[in-house]
Amino acid sequence: MQKIAVLGAGSWGLALALLLNEKGNAITIWCYDSKEKEDILTFRENKRCLPGIKIPLEIQFTTSVEEAVKEKDVVIMAVPSKAIRKTTESMKAFVAEEALIVNVSKGIEFETLYTLSQVIQSVVSNPVVVLSGPSHAEEVARHMPTTVVASSNCMASAEKIQDLFMTEYFRVYTNPDIIGVELGGALKNVIALAAGVVDGLGYGDNSKAALMTRGIAEISRLGVAMGGMPATFGGLTGIGDLMVTCMSGHSRNRRCGELIGQGYSLEEATQKINMVVEGVPTAKGAYALMKAYEIEMPIIEGIYEVLFENYSVQECVQKLMNRDKKMESFD
Amino acid sequence: MQKIAVLGAGSWGLALALLLNEKGNAITIWCYDSKEKEDILTFRENKRCLPGIKIPLEIQFTTSVEEAVKEKDVVIMAVPSKAIRKTTESMKAFVAEEALIVNVSKGIEFETLYTLSQVIQSVVSNPVVVLSGPSHAEEVARHMPTTVVASSNCMASAEKIQDLFMTEYFRVYTNPDIIGVELGGALKNVIALAAGVVDGLGYGDNSKAALMTRGIAEISRLGVAMGGMPATFGGLTGIGDLMVTCMSGHSRNRRCGELIGQGYSLEEATQKINMVVEGVPTAKGAYALMKAYEIEMPIIEGIYEVLFENYSVQECVQKLMNRDKKMESFD
Repeated sequence: MQKIAVLGAGSWGLALALLLNEKGNAITIWCYDSKEKEDILTFRENKRCLPGIKIPLEIQFTTSVEEAVKEKDVVIMAVPSKAIRKTTESMKAFVAEEALIVNVSKGIEFETLYTLSQVIQSVVSNPVVVLSGPSHAEEVARHMPTTVVASSNCMASAEKIQDLFMTEYFRVYTNPDIIGVELGGALKNVIALAAGVVDGLGYGDNSKAALMTRGIAEISRLGVAMGGMPATFGGLTGIGDLMVTCMSGHSRNRRCGELIGQGYSLEEATQKINMVVEGVPTAKGAYALMKAYEIEMPIIEGIYEVLFENYSVQECVQKLMNRDKKMESFD
Repeated sequence: MQKIAVLGAGSWGLALALLLNEKGNAITIWCYDSKEKEDILTFRENKRCLPGIKIPLEIQFTTSVEEAVKEKDVVIMAVPSKAIRKTTESMKAFVAEEALIVNVSKGIEFETLYTLSQVIQSVVSNPVVVLSGPSHAEEVARHMPTTVVASSNCMASAEKIQDLFMTEYFRVYTNPDIIGVELGGALKNVIALAAGVVDGLGYGDNSKAALMTRGIAEISRLGVAMGGMPATFGGLTGIGDLMVTCMSGHSRNRRCGELIGQGYSLEEATQKINMVVEGVPTAKGAYALMKAYEIEMPIIEGIYEVLFENYSVQECVQKLMNRDKKMESFD
């Protein structure tokens, strides 16, 4: 039995808390919003983020970061990417020195172009493990067979987290390539937005599969330039996570793109979704990384132009389809 | 304007014939079945394979292989994989020496474990180009943006085929790795069957994405042992084609697996589909290649056991999920 804090009561934080609670651990969940906390305590359910899933009474809730992380063995960061730095800073004075930090959020910090584990490690010196892979919260909460990857600069820590989470329906692999795991997880949200645009335009599966395949090739080019391993982008945290995000009705990123493809503005689309759409800020980070590393990334560039520079989606698709004929290239 | 024979009047042969006809070429399609030929001539449509798509009057049909291939510049092989050898033998006496042969069928010849271009090249000495990628015929016939790869041991031939097919909605890349292109295209049909089983069992997208990701890793391990390039399996003809096949309602392989996951026998499932399900014979070829090259391929092994050795799908899934904990590996 371990004492575990989960920071964030959204769908993924809750799903992981439920799994760890089933395995006999003691869970405290930190809610940012006291109204959300009260609603969860009243209904034992988060009706907005994970409707229909009951939250057992033994899971504790608090709005105090101190109370959440104090004397815990493991702290799971499940807040939106833009809140990672602030949340880490707010727990710094209270988190035990030997506590393992597990980051399950995905994104790039725009100001520094850090991955989220880099953001965390720039604030605290605890060991950090990243847990990532094709894993819709709704399906994990319903015990559907799921595979993920635990990655860290410290493999002993990754293996501890593998043991902590592994169950009959939740299979955890380890992978030492943390930069590859994090970049794949973050940037696939941008490709999922683009795949959603393809859906919204009414194009077929041929177009979407092409976009996803060329999309992961772009991510891989950038990731390898940043020190990642090519194989990681072909694995669960790269193409695997991209597939689940693009195939699914659950994905907010795909759905946001679909609305944009149907003609809604970015503001209208994100308002309709009413949850954080990580691909939007990540598109800015990805575009900046593309420029910084001078990598050719036509899909990232196209979706950036659609989101932030008022290009039409039709222009974007035409530009992608009408490039010069060439060999299939991967680097 | 080129004179082109298309051998096979199924969905893919027809869709490519329509595209090449639009580009101003002279097309003759060979039908195996005279009843099918009569129906097509009567309705100018193949109601079974490509319903709702009109076939223009200038496209010729014949049941004579001689008439189809004689004096043609390009011969496109679009027959089921098990008919490739016999069809090639039947045209050998009539095909022009300098004609380019384009193979668009996908499979492994079980008796020899040859890829289909190897089968063709064991019969005739014409240059052979393989055209493969994420391309449902129904969507190409409706002009939805599609990308494919032309591959050959002779890159000049691949480039001719790139020029022949390239249009605004059909983008053709070249790739010199013909063994990688063919193995990916053939074996993905087996993984698509397995993905269909996951659908039929009512599991979610997490399970399916895991299976697809680990599936392409298996194909890649085998393909590299057989001389293919790792990157090809992460490209349009590998993961791209796997995605389109697994995502789609169009795919017969995925649909066949779905029926098996729902409890139908292999015989019942293939009868219901009433078109060739290439993944079934290819599963035998893939299993034999796995044994011959001594490669670990648990998904191929599992689907083989389900299809041909009466294992239950539940046993198969449990075996896959409950393997020892390990690192994410790619080789």
